[in-house]
Amino acid sequence: MALIVQKFGGSSVADAEKIRRVAGIIADTYCEGHDVVVVLSAQGDTTDELLEKAAEINPKPSKRELDMLLSTGEQISISLCAMALEKMGLPVISLTGWQIGLRTNSNYGNARIKEVGAERIRRELDQRKIVIVAGFQGINKFDDITTLGRGGSDTTAVSIAASMHADLCQIYTDVEGVFTADPRKVPGAKKLDEITFDEMLELASLGAQVLHNRSVEMAKRYGVNLEVLSSYVRKPGTIVKEVTSMEDTKISGVAKDSDIARIALLGLADEPGTAFRIFRVLAKSGINVDIILQSIGRDETKDISFTVAKPDMEAAVSALNENKEVLGFNDIKVSDKVCKISIVGAGMIKSPGIAARMFEALYDANVNIHMISTSEIKVSVLIDEEHADLAMQSIHRKFFGI
Amino acid sequence: MALIVQKFGGSSVADAEKIRRVAGIIADTYCEGHDVVVVLSAQGDTTDELLEKAAEINPKPSKRELDMLLSTGEQISISLCAMALEKMGLPVISLTGWQIGLRTNSNYGNARIKEVGAERIRRELDQRKIVIVAGFQGINKFDDITTLGRGGSDTTAVSIAASMHADLCQIYTDVEGVFTADPRKVPGAKKLDEITFDEMLELASLGAQVLHNRSVEMAKRYGVNLEVLSSYVRKPGTIVKEVTSMEDTKISGVAKDSDIARIALLGLADEPGTAFRIFRVLAKSGINVDIILQSIGRDETKDISFTVAKPDMEAAVSALNENKEVLGFNDIKVSDKVCKISIVGAGMIKSPGIAARMFEALYDANVNIHMISTSEIKVSVLIDEEHADLAMQSIHRKFFGI
Repeated sequence: MALIVQKFGGSSVADAEKIRRVAGIIADTYCEGHDVVVVLSAQGDTTDELLEKAAEINPKPSKRELDMLLSTGEQISISLCAMALEKMGLPVISLTGWQIGLRTNSNYGNARIKEVGAERIRRELDQRKIVIVAGFQGINKFDDITTLGRGGSDTTAVSIAASMHADLCQIYTDVEGVFTADPRKVPGAKKLDEITFDEMLELASLGAQVLHNRSVEMAKRYGVNLEVLSSYVRKPGTIVKEVTSMEDTKISGVAKDSDIARIALLGLADEPGTAFRIFRVLAKSGINVDIILQSIGRDETKDISFTVAKPDMEAAVSALNENKEVLGFNDIKVSDKVCKISIVGAGMIKSPGIAARMFEALYDANVNIHMISTSEIKVSVLIDEEHADLAMQSIHRKFFGI
Repeated sequence: MALIVQKFGGSSVADAEKIRRVAGIIADTYCEGHDVVVVLSAQGDTTDELLEKAAEINPKPSKRELDMLLSTGEQISISLCAMALEKMGLPVISLTGWQIGLRTNSNYGNARIKEVGAERIRRELDQRKIVIVAGFQGINKFDDITTLGRGGSDTTAVSIAASMHADLCQIYTDVEGVFTADPRKVPGAKKLDEITFDEMLELASLGAQVLHNRSVEMAKRYGVNLEVLSSYVRKPGTIVKEVTSMEDTKISGVAKDSDIARIALLGLADEPGTAFRIFRVLAKSGINVDIILQSIGRDETKDISFTVAKPDMEAAVSALNENKEVLGFNDIKVSDKVCKISIVGAGMIKSPGIAARMFEALYDANVNIHMISTSEIKVSVLIDEEHADLAMQSIHRKFFGI
């Protein structure tokens, strides 16, 4: 008998029929003799409907009141799901964030978890009840309701699994697991049986958003075994853990991130401190920079290009232009018609030539590379967005044969 | 500067526009320098929508999970109303039942309030914040959410007013106050400026459901001054308190209750214990009996008639028929085409002839009386339902001149 935490997202509980399906999965796990803690998000469109109600009244409400409003969404899901399990004759109880003592800091709308009190959940499990917990929400030191922001329900599930030393934390999604590439874009993309936390982190940061990084980082830190699997197809998904047994596979996936823009500053003085000044300006505006490329100096000037997340593009350009004199550039060029393609694999570090094979695949597809960035388990290239799918397929074929 | 508790019902906060109107009333009170605690119900149709969602999944969910579900309704109202006040630039905070420490027993769906912790509300008021509290909900000793059943939000408001020693508890409704009769039925019905708790209790029990009895009883017990007023028309309503200054008015209102049925048991043995056996059978089935009439014995038999609430009629008849032999009646006759008309007034006890004037009014209107019941501050008659409006108007004219 194991303790299993299962998390279902908003689309998995969107209506009565889907809730019944989810209840079926939970019931099967429980009836195999396991202790089951379930974490649910708000039903499909609930959050949007609530936001609409708020916008009608106040387009800029305080985040505290917004959290008070939005946290009702998960409370609705958990009670409905508990009712579905009651109908099956199973012992069940639903609990909100405050009822399980999920304490966070006071950063409303994007709060960080400080602790999860395991006592209440443990007490209910000891009575052989299925425990259904509201994801995405907690309370701060004032006993005010907070929400956890993006990926909040995944993070709730992992933090409960960590604090209760669960044997497995299953994240149910609308895909069957983690694939070597986006199956909708790359025919022949294969589901992985296992992947390491680090690979998963790189994939997520590259736009393959099966799991939010926060939850993967937390799982890695506390050694929680994750499984990503489908709530529609009953078969094993992808296990995410510290070390995988798949040493023979060099790379675990190809990912694409189109939510990116490139900014180039031209005609900078070729002297020390230029880069420092530029990136200090951006950091002060709260803008994260990804790939950075600096040209070799020529005629006492140099160029610096870098990528930012697309929503940050305008703010970045404003901040740079406001400091144009201090930074001393001649011109600024911006493009959001670019895309980052990456290969990720923990085995990469031990296998020379992986990057070269990737570049060869791009050459085969006649795709020009604008920028390159590498880490121990990742190689990324920036290319024109229009070539993205072609590039993905060519790289996938090179590494996975299909 | 006073401490005022204001309660608004579901129809008063049904949409964005109505919430803005409510926010306007709250803001005016606050800006006059008062401390304001507001209690809200769920928005118009929210509760029905949630019940529908539940029914789709489980027609008979546990009451505990139903309370978990339904309590989201008020949480939505309070956050939206707080947002409306934020938009007006006022300091405001919304609080749920558990956040104010409203403790109840564990009777899910119809819980009784045990205590209200005033600390949190007091702390917020001390910072000159408007406090918006979710009505209708509390928590039991297990920290599980309970709801208070019918009239729950009124009761929440009164219990907060009692525990905080508020100067006034205003119950905003869709009528302008308590009237001498239903203004939709009796042209010329007048709004009362004041009424006593006892009169209000009698009126409520007679079907003039401006306030639920639970809240009036609680207000009477803790000496909370109530005001019933309109959320649509900005003028004083009716003050409900222990003693009114209106000694000259003998009766304060005429009320009608059509939700009533008459049951007659014919041919009972004219011996001691008959009535006892009948009403024990009904009490065991949880059925409340209102007016009771026993005929004078004749040929060693007698008849007993009584009224019950219409929804209890079938259960009453079944219970009686099941015990027909023990009770020893020949026949049972039932009518739900009846109606109870009552006059209520604390001054009545000191004024002989009030009942006679009422009967005269009915005679004027050629209305036959089936049963009569009197208390210290009330005279009720049972008549045919078809004569109800005519009777109301005639009695009202007799006592109020119009």
